[in-house]
Amino acid sequence: MTTDRTSVDAKKLTDFATKALQKVGVPEEDARITANILVATDLRGIDSHGVAHLAAFYVKGIKEGRINPNPRIEVFSQAPATAIMDGDRGLGFVVGYRAMMEAMRRAETTGAGFVAVRNSTHYGAGGNYAMMALSHNMIGISLTRGGRGMVAPGSRGRGIGINVISIAAPAKREAPFVLDMATTVVAAGKVEIALRTGMTMPEGWSVDREGKPITDPKQYYDEQGALLPLGGIPRLGSFKGYGLAVAVDILCSILSGSTISTRVPGNHFFGALRIDGFMPAEKFKGAMDGMIREIRALPKAAGVDRIYMAGEVEQEIEEERRANGIPLHPSVVASLQELAKELDIEYDL
Amino acid sequence: MTTDRTSVDAKKLTDFATKALQKVGVPEEDARITANILVATDLRGIDSHGVAHLAAFYVKGIKEGRINPNPRIEVFSQAPATAIMDGDRGLGFVVGYRAMMEAMRRAETTGAGFVAVRNSTHYGAGGNYAMMALSHNMIGISLTRGGRGMVAPGSRGRGIGINVISIAAPAKREAPFVLDMATTVVAAGKVEIALRTGMTMPEGWSVDREGKPITDPKQYYDEQGALLPLGGIPRLGSFKGYGLAVAVDILCSILSGSTISTRVPGNHFFGALRIDGFMPAEKFKGAMDGMIREIRALPKAAGVDRIYMAGEVEQEIEEERRANGIPLHPSVVASLQELAKELDIEYDL
Repeated sequence: MTTDRTSVDAKKLTDFATKALQKVGVPEEDARITANILVATDLRGIDSHGVAHLAAFYVKGIKEGRINPNPRIEVFSQAPATAIMDGDRGLGFVVGYRAMMEAMRRAETTGAGFVAVRNSTHYGAGGNYAMMALSHNMIGISLTRGGRGMVAPGSRGRGIGINVISIAAPAKREAPFVLDMATTVVAAGKVEIALRTGMTMPEGWSVDREGKPITDPKQYYDEQGALLPLGGIPRLGSFKGYGLAVAVDILCSILSGSTISTRVPGNHFFGALRIDGFMPAEKFKGAMDGMIREIRALPKAAGVDRIYMAGEVEQEIEEERRANGIPLHPSVVASLQELAKELDIEYDL
Repeated sequence: MTTDRTSVDAKKLTDFATKALQKVGVPEEDARITANILVATDLRGIDSHGVAHLAAFYVKGIKEGRINPNPRIEVFSQAPATAIMDGDRGLGFVVGYRAMMEAMRRAETTGAGFVAVRNSTHYGAGGNYAMMALSHNMIGISLTRGGRGMVAPGSRGRGIGINVISIAAPAKREAPFVLDMATTVVAAGKVEIALRTGMTMPEGWSVDREGKPITDPKQYYDEQGALLPLGGIPRLGSFKGYGLAVAVDILCSILSGSTISTRVPGNHFFGALRIDGFMPAEKFKGAMDGMIREIRALPKAAGVDRIYMAGEVEQEIEEERRANGIPLHPSVVASLQELAKELDIEYDL
């Protein structure tokens, strides 16, 4: 699968994405923030949420007026630890970055900071914002309302957002804990990949409006299939995945003051807990190492080489890709070459 | 199933439980806090976590020295919004209640309050503490480390805690949103109920050390079966249930300064977000009603009468039980009668 891929350097890719965004009116600082997050996503192997979407989602979104390249971002606060941010339809990366910075600034003072965000746009992979907390010795939380695509237990069709939970906590020598999960059985990106690679989906990912399993990704798109909540069916806990999705929506959409009609992927919620507001950060990080190693040392199932902690696989991919470059799929390379032509910038990857 | 049950009055049951706890050395105020929470749990229909455990878990735990009836609870704080609490092995109900009060007190000042708790004991159903926030116009969070009983993906046997997530948010006319979920496919209480009622468990709840499904609850106990993480298997997202469980343990156990050997069900984490630190509480609650009604109005699957929100079923049971009494299972009645005799208090239910 990687043999036909082109390896590109992370720094060059970042510069390219920055230039492309500047060309459509994004100020340099904001363009760089966005490019950094997109490429960080690719570095960690989350190919569905990185530069693959640069042209189709973000540049196109700006050109067609859905995304405001130069937003006037506003913060409203009624308490030292909490605030609402209005993103003025800016790039979700820029709004998300500034909101997480705002949450951390508040956590610096009070020990905890929380920012609910409305009127933003798609912010890519949520883990990026939670991870911003790591170098500040904070625990980071990043939640986002996703597109409508989950079926509520007892319902039919797409009723609930494919909402996402991301939590990051630093360790000392071990990789940081980074959980980044859709509250559906799988994220929509997995269906996209199945379609692109001609894969059949397992039963338990998606259903049609009669509740019958969809295994053909084309059928999912053609017939507006819905993704099942984590748990799959009620007997196996689907009301939990559904409940988590609603909890995320409460924090992202209701708490930020969005109306029903604006409950869209542009509602987020960010949190930061300063570790030394609880205990010395070094002691915490040492204990994290201990827990990670204890779990790694659990008895392994037959045929299993290693028990992974959330974020470990991504950290290993990042080390490899920082050294050897990011392997881009031919369709992504083509989209970037076309973008370069369209925007009249050099394609130098 | 309810025909052979005895209906008892909630107030009488609370008084009885209070007296029983006082008899084993719990101060009156603490005994009443505990009894209130136990009975509130029964009122909401969560029969596995209420007075059914009064004798076997709590009174016995005190008598055998595992639970300290008169703890010296300490609070350590390094920042306005955050604190650690040491429960001195007190009743989890008392420690949990005081920790949630502490979190809310901090949220009153800064907008957000968080308390990580160590050296507590089993605190019953986590939703009770999250729900304490509702009448204060706050969003409540209550997490707890559970007993070791979840199998980590790729592992065998009981390696991870059956950790629990509870989140509550108030609505205006609708029932409050109350999510209270183990991060396993089902809580251990469901296996207990299956054993008691002679039920076969569905495949997907539990596995033996070879990863083969356990459907006989007796086998689960005899062979130390493990519960699967929410999601069940890796292809259907079990690493998400596993990741959530670890995240809960980080906040409850690592952040409270527990050591590996004390990472037990007595580690908790409480959070409170003051809604009007973000937006007017009345507006928030109105928007909650709107969201709940919007979801209730989604197209229904065949044979489904109603789409439920987390907490709605429990609220309906509570209304019914407040009016008609709490139906206790004969085995629970017997345990309370025996307890009355043992402690030489009147059985007047």
